[in-house]
Amino acid sequence: MASEFSGTRRPGGRTGRTRLAALNATLELLGERGYAELTVEAVAERSGVHKTTLYRRWESAEGLVAAALLMGTEQPWEAPDTGSLEGDLREVNLELVHYFTAPGERELPTASISAAFLSPRAAEALREFYVDRHARSAPIVERAAGRGEVPLGTDPVEVVRVACGPIFYRLFVSREGVTPQDADVAARAAAAAAKAGVFTAKTGGTASPPA
Amino acid sequence: MASEFSGTRRPGGRTGRTRLAALNATLELLGERGYAELTVEAVAERSGVHKTTLYRRWESAEGLVAAALLMGTEQPWEAPDTGSLEGDLREVNLELVHYFTAPGERELPTASISAAFLSPRAAEALREFYVDRHARSAPIVERAAGRGEVPLGTDPVEVVRVACGPIFYRLFVSREGVTPQDADVAARAAAAAAKAGVFTAKTGGTASPPA
Repeated sequence: MASEFSGTRRPGGRTGRTRLAALNATLELLGERGYAELTVEAVAERSGVHKTTLYRRWESAEGLVAAALLMGTEQPWEAPDTGSLEGDLREVNLELVHYFTAPGERELPTASISAAFLSPRAAEALREFYVDRHARSAPIVERAAGRGEVPLGTDPVEVVRVACGPIFYRLFVSREGVTPQDADVAARAAAAAAKAGVFTAKTGGTASPPA
Repeated sequence: MASEFSGTRRPGGRTGRTRLAALNATLELLGERGYAELTVEAVAERSGVHKTTLYRRWESAEGLVAAALLMGTEQPWEAPDTGSLEGDLREVNLELVHYFTAPGERELPTASISAAFLSPRAAEALREFYVDRHARSAPIVERAAGRGEVPLGTDPVEVVRVACGPIFYRLFVSREGVTPQDADVAARAAAAAAKAGVFTAKTGGTASPPA
């Protein structure tokens, strides 16, 4: 899918400006209406990009949403570096809690998760976004291994999944809401499991801390 | 919301049979079409319950879906008892992985999670379902505390959230799919964190296993 618009990734130029206008309008409308109500017509109206251009470049509302979600991989994001694994995971989780709960901010990320249930291409775009986000988060665990906080060979992505999984579980499965305190508990849980060697292929099966 | 149909919970009787027919048809259609395509007319047709009865008892398709999702709290489910915290959490996670990935089975639970994005009443029903499921899972951790596997005062629900959070994260956020192996890693992570004292109000702040 990336090839579909990677040719338009040059920052400037008319093509680049058109793409940004169309995809930013798509994100606005996704946050405002959700995927089910999003139409190419509405994106044309909001962006000022002609409908025929939108259809030619992105085929459909689904194509626009998929391309718009993938724009996230072009945004700058660096993993926090607080000096401890627990601190870094807490920062990541606090950012998630804010992003998915703050009124006026939560609408778009929530609509993105929701769109993936209705659109295979949105789901694939979400998957690609998180592949990129996982890769950018890896230094958190690599630095912790370098400091001797966790065993060498600890799988960075597994640590991230355990750290943020409970946040998303509360938000979108058990629907019980999430607070900064929950972000802290989940970060401490992932760090403790990592220190216990759960995420190393070798020791994962047996390592466990004293009760 | 429970009061809305708790009066119809008597197992037998015409009222009970009508309710079961309507809500089971609702679940069938939810799995087949998803929430957005579900109509009272379709439920009437599928269940043989007259439309006016459906509207009188459940008001709308949303009311039917909320009531149908809450039926889950009436189903028998007991937490596994394998003799170890890790074993019990693994069983719970393996059940989840099967339920949310097996073709012909995953459709309904997936549509239930998805419906909650579109319907506040479905979200509330999902929340009530998981409150019940959390309560039924608590013995896993209480038995582990009794065996001395985890500190007394370990929060059972926090353990469950950390155990199954990564499963749902893979399924519905990072969209990378989930395997029995992933169920095992997440179960070991939650057990290790619990043993490290992360989920006890008292020691949570400081306890961590040796790296």
